[in-house]
Amino acid sequence: MPYELYYWPDIQGRGEFVRLALEQADADYVDVGRRDGFEAVVRALKEPAVAGKVFAAPFLKDGPTVVGQTAAILFYLGPKLGLAPPDEAGWLWAHQVQLTIADLVNEAHDTHHPVDMMLYYKDQKPEALRRAAGFTKARIPKFLGWLERAIEANGASGWLAGEALTYADLSTFQVVEGLSYAFPRAAAKTLKTTPRLVALAARVRDMPNIRAYLQSPRRIPFNEDGIFRRYPELDEAD
Amino acid sequence: MPYELYYWPDIQGRGEFVRLALEQADADYVDVGRRDGFEAVVRALKEPAVAGKVFAAPFLKDGPTVVGQTAAILFYLGPKLGLAPPDEAGWLWAHQVQLTIADLVNEAHDTHHPVDMMLYYKDQKPEALRRAAGFTKARIPKFLGWLERAIEANGASGWLAGEALTYADLSTFQVVEGLSYAFPRAAAKTLKTTPRLVALAARVRDMPNIRAYLQSPRRIPFNEDGIFRRYPELDEAD
Repeated sequence: MPYELYYWPDIQGRGEFVRLALEQADADYVDVGRRDGFEAVVRALKEPAVAGKVFAAPFLKDGPTVVGQTAAILFYLGPKLGLAPPDEAGWLWAHQVQLTIADLVNEAHDTHHPVDMMLYYKDQKPEALRRAAGFTKARIPKFLGWLERAIEANGASGWLAGEALTYADLSTFQVVEGLSYAFPRAAAKTLKTTPRLVALAARVRDMPNIRAYLQSPRRIPFNEDGIFRRYPELDEAD
Repeated sequence: MPYELYYWPDIQGRGEFVRLALEQADADYVDVGRRDGFEAVVRALKEPAVAGKVFAAPFLKDGPTVVGQTAAILFYLGPKLGLAPPDEAGWLWAHQVQLTIADLVNEAHDTHHPVDMMLYYKDQKPEALRRAAGFTKARIPKFLGWLERAIEANGASGWLAGEALTYADLSTFQVVEGLSYAFPRAAAKTLKTTPRLVALAARVRDMPNIRAYLQSPRRIPFNEDGIFRRYPELDEAD
């Protein structure tokens, strides 16, 4: 029985971290929102077995099991997809990386929605300019610098957790892509100082299943409805 | 060997979720920041074995094991402290609740720091007023309403995960306390509609170890340096 991923069909968003893991593992899965549309996800969120378990999309169904929260979905899927370290200490560590990425993703989102997530960006642009300034100047270097140190601390493999690729590496690739799309100048500036991180992202990008996915119509392009949005005024000045 | 919790000594903050679990379990632990001061936490974050593993406080040392991210610390401690469900599905579910609470905590923080976490509240007050309006009107009801449904969906025990108290319940108590401190009018309005959540928080508050902790000097009072701050202008109008 295929895994069923429930997420919004028109954006990468938080669901993309799950899509990347499923794609890399060549897993049998259905991206329900993309197959059946936005309304199918809205309906599923209201099913009694889902509503008491899931706060927001994305969520995963695996037979009778329902799992919400991106990081928890990956914690659940990781060992099943061969994308987690082999031991429990490694599971916890890969998960910590994912949780830190989740914090980064929340902050990236808030650059364009600093004061009201129900309104449009254009309705909070002055606030967004202030929020993005701190994000590009202080937070991108802090987060990416930490990922660089974590790769180094993990040893010679060049990955984040143990000797082999894990979902933590796939997610790290995704934030490098996302930040480079949304904040090309600020991201490039920091990435000059993080060679291990750049190498890790390039290795992921070049893995056959990931390369095939990125070139397929299943990969939704970055756009200005997602988390990583290119609003040039929010990036650092040249 | 006692657990060592590293967190800022003058606030409840994210560390409080860990303190509550350690206190309820009557665990042997040292709150290093409170014993040795703020600088001891800063120094510890720079230790090589910590810097490659931990993005920010709180973190926990258990002998050679170092764990960062509040939700991951509780995932690690829960079974050891007798504060997790007995089975793996239950572990994952309690963790999902904790991750959703982490989202709520981030949003509560951003009501007073919507545009720059490095500046003071007074330097971003107009933005904070906008952010808090959406938080009190839409987000508090959404998060607390979801917790109410989750308690109901869990069955007759009145707890969030399985038949007994878990760290998910302790953390839920803490956000009810925090929201009631920071947004007394908005919280009270929503809590009128969530009887199961009110009952759960009252049960936690009345447990002997929690009651003793809350009355001890170890419980730092809520204050305007933490996450839940009482700025009356950010609460709902009467």
